[in-house]
Amino acid sequence: MSPTPPLPIPLKEIAARFGGELLGDSGVRITQVAPLETAEPLHLSFLAHAKFRRLLAGTRAGALIVGREARDLTTLPRIVCDNPYAYFARVSAWLNPLPAVRPGIDPAAVVHPAARVAATAYIGPLASIGCGVSVAEGASVGAGCILEEGVRVGTGTRLYPRVVVYRDCILGARGIVHSGAVIGADGFGLAPDDGQWLKIPQVGRVVIGDDVEIGANTTIDRGTMGDTIIEDGVKLDNQIQVGHNVRIGAHTAIAGCAGIAGSALIGRHCTIGGGAMILGHLEIADRVHIAAGTLVTKSVRQAGAYAGAYPFEEQRKWRRNAVQLRRLDTLARTVALLERRLEQLERTRG
Amino acid sequence: MSPTPPLPIPLKEIAARFGGELLGDSGVRITQVAPLETAEPLHLSFLAHAKFRRLLAGTRAGALIVGREARDLTTLPRIVCDNPYAYFARVSAWLNPLPAVRPGIDPAAVVHPAARVAATAYIGPLASIGCGVSVAEGASVGAGCILEEGVRVGTGTRLYPRVVVYRDCILGARGIVHSGAVIGADGFGLAPDDGQWLKIPQVGRVVIGDDVEIGANTTIDRGTMGDTIIEDGVKLDNQIQVGHNVRIGAHTAIAGCAGIAGSALIGRHCTIGGGAMILGHLEIADRVHIAAGTLVTKSVRQAGAYAGAYPFEEQRKWRRNAVQLRRLDTLARTVALLERRLEQLERTRG
Amino acid sequence: MSPTPPLPIPLKEIAARFGGELLGDSGVRITQVAPLETAEPLHLSFLAHAKFRRLLAGTRAGALIVGREARDLTTLPRIVCDNPYAYFARVSAWLNPLPAVRPGIDPAAVVHPAARVAATAYIGPLASIGCGVSVAEGASVGAGCILEEGVRVGTGTRLYPRVVVYRDCILGARGIVHSGAVIGADGFGLAPDDGQWLKIPQVGRVVIGDDVEIGANTTIDRGTMGDTIIEDGVKLDNQIQVGHNVRIGAHTAIAGCAGIAGSALIGRHCTIGGGAMILGHLEIADRVHIAAGTLVTKSVRQAGAYAGAYPFEEQRKWRRNAVQLRRLDTLARTVALLERRLEQLERTRG
Repeated sequence: MSPTPPLPIPLKEIAARFGGELLGDSGVRITQVAPLETAEPLHLSFLAHAKFRRLLAGTRAGALIVGREARDLTTLPRIVCDNPYAYFARVSAWLNPLPAVRPGIDPAAVVHPAARVAATAYIGPLASIGCGVSVAEGASVGAGCILEEGVRVGTGTRLYPRVVVYRDCILGARGIVHSGAVIGADGFGLAPDDGQWLKIPQVGRVVIGDDVEIGANTTIDRGTMGDTIIEDGVKLDNQIQVGHNVRIGAHTAIAGCAGIAGSALIGRHCTIGGGAMILGHLEIADRVHIAAGTLVTKSVRQAGAYAGAYPFEEQRKWRRNAVQLRRLDTLARTVALLERRLEQLERTRG
Repeated sequence: MSPTPPLPIPLKEIAARFGGELLGDSGVRITQVAPLETAEPLHLSFLAHAKFRRLLAGTRAGALIVGREARDLTTLPRIVCDNPYAYFARVSAWLNPLPAVRPGIDPAAVVHPAARVAATAYIGPLASIGCGVSVAEGASVGAGCILEEGVRVGTGTRLYPRVVVYRDCILGARGIVHSGAVIGADGFGLAPDDGQWLKIPQVGRVVIGDDVEIGANTTIDRGTMGDTIIEDGVKLDNQIQVGHNVRIGAHTAIAGCAGIAGSALIGRHCTIGGGAMILGHLEIADRVHIAAGTLVTKSVRQAGAYAGAYPFEEQRKWRRNAVQLRRLDTLARTVALLERRLEQLERTRG
Repeated sequence: MSPTPPLPIPLKEIAARFGGELLGDSGVRITQVAPLETAEPLHLSFLAHAKFRRLLAGTRAGALIVGREARDLTTLPRIVCDNPYAYFARVSAWLNPLPAVRPGIDPAAVVHPAARVAATAYIGPLASIGCGVSVAEGASVGAGCILEEGVRVGTGTRLYPRVVVYRDCILGARGIVHSGAVIGADGFGLAPDDGQWLKIPQVGRVVIGDDVEIGANTTIDRGTMGDTIIEDGVKLDNQIQVGHNVRIGAHTAIAGCAGIAGSALIGRHCTIGGGAMILGHLEIADRVHIAAGTLVTKSVRQAGAYAGAYPFEEQRKWRRNAVQLRRLDTLARTVALLERRLEQLERTRG
């Protein structure tokens, strides 16, 4: 974690550090990043897409990050680059580093004597660290977190307050886990037996790769037999449910409130929209993009964009259309019949 | 918090306190409120809508609260008023006050020396209160809550056990936050960069107005740049996700499991049904009512009621209709063609 | 909780304990259960449905559990029984018992002097046990759990870390509650009053029967007046919201992310799919099966299977069909008109 640079910074210093073509006054001084609408003269702003160019006229930003196609849309001091949004992300991360991890174990933490906490790691107050847990160098376990026996937390990974990780689950390096996340609870494995449900023991683990972010109150269940696997670079928003034995491929991003049912296999570089549900035992190919609110009921073998939400409208119109939706099969058969009767008429006319 | 009144209470005392026209025996004695179906002779019940009048015949309630239109639907002792449900809410709040806040800091709490806790506020056991936090008069922070550095809790606000508030977020006065809520976690801000995701630092806050209630396990993300804002009088149910830089207008109520994506602006006096999803960067006008299960994919500029859920039915019927839904565009084109062929026939006949 | 048996176990010992017809080498030795795809020679696997028979050819399992119809599909040592999945569940539970509950109160727990904790129960570190709570024999309250005053936990029930149970709620025997669950928060009871919302006090409880499992981050609200009731043998997955005054009938199972709004009455032996939403005040009969993603907007009086999700497809096709869905009522009226015009033509031709 590099410390915040001394502020303000001349724009040329940013260009020197992060690259790009600098146009205009290279000495303009910057203290922070900000969106076009709210930027002030000491702020560096960005134009992520040319479609937002109408915002350029009104901005008070002192300088801009723009794409090549927007090179000449402004006369403000600017850095021209291939991916202005990524450039902005890098500058913002430099200007706004996370607070450094303070090494040490808070005296109000409860740490099992057989846990191994690296010298540069932090354990917050009221955290509970079980037998055989290992917390690697530079990792941070926030206040009130509970790591059951055998959990491993990788180098530099940060757990915000009140995360629970069940026994034997593994978190990779440089991860972020937000408050209220529960990693490794039992999957929903039940065998029907004479009108009742028998619980299937959930003896697998959750194994999480490097550079994974997990949102607040997201839950990832342990495998029934074998593991639930979250590959490197996966990003999960808040309130997501990931069932037992799911595998989420590297660099896939999933938005809030989505649910992935047990044993679904999600490819790499996918995006899944908010509130989407993927049913169990399906396979989703790499580079599949599922729109918000979609229920995925069968495997998706081809990369591409998929959707399936009911288009919203005024309630009274919705009611009329929805009534007809319940008769759609009948309507389709009526149309097929009309077509045959019309052909008949056309023939008799001929 | 007024103490519970001495019980039982004569009905006339209730009418004197809360108003309305008292009809029938004004001395009937009341100990509690109850619904019509389960009320007993010492209970005060209410008829919220005339459509429930069929329940009047069977009720054992000792007295009723009714609207003007239901004035003569019963001979039971009754208070006639404009809004019987609100009247009932007020009487119930009087008869069932929350337990008084016990001032003081539990010895098992961990409070930073630079936190300011008002003399009349309560901090529960195993709570963690960070540097620079302020907890105002009469506020209550339940067991296991974690307030990171710089958080402010307004006068009389109650946090139930195990709420997390990230650094620098602000809660107004007279609020209620239920267990498991997470306020101020990072928004889901990611810039795609060569097949991977760069994290955008989330440097804004969550700023919550007065008289706001937040349900169990609801999450409200901090702003990326600038704040996420929840205005006065907003009511959020459980398991709701509110993304970064959202603004929710005053007195809007949102039901459980709803999701509001980043930068959506929700108006005042709106209602949003359970499980509804509002996509990001949309604007919803004041007094918009979104039905449960609706996915809102574009801005709503007009007050009114909107809906968009698939109408459920028996699964075998659903399957037949859903198959046709995937062919609806083709069906519509077939119908347009039939129409033209029919016109042709009609012309040749003429 | 029986201890793990000495391993490996001859197959005949399993058949002797759990029944069924043993075919093939009865002395083959077993150490664990595993799915057909990943089983190794010391593993007992199972064929839950004959439709998975293609997996039999490639399995390396040492022995199998099969149904009567699959008796002769393999020559591997096998136990033939009526319900192979339930048989497997029983064997797995025997081979993989939960860790025994260690009796005692962790020194880092905060237990009110007026709480009653049975001698064989466990209270974990950093748990907070309120006044008047009772924890029965063999129950386990995990690290960081918070039980407010008056809560009762039945015999042998296990609360994983960081469960919150609000005051006076009751949990039956042999239950399991996963981390982050919140039982007994206030229901979402609001009376509109002149543009603002009045809170209705929530004075009921949550009463949970025996053998109930509750998933991670699931929330069950207390009743407004009267109780929210979860009957025996109910199984709730993660991230479910159960509103105030709901009743869920015995042996009903509900998958992740589902929501049950206030005062809904769900029958016995129902299944509700992931992400389904049941609106308030509805009644669902016994043995009703709701598909994933379905919004149930009216009562279901008949047992059977119901569904109502929009069928997903490629986004560009979805867009075309969804546009037509907004015109479906018009289309239906066009078809009705075409039908009349065609009849007219047919008559004039005759």
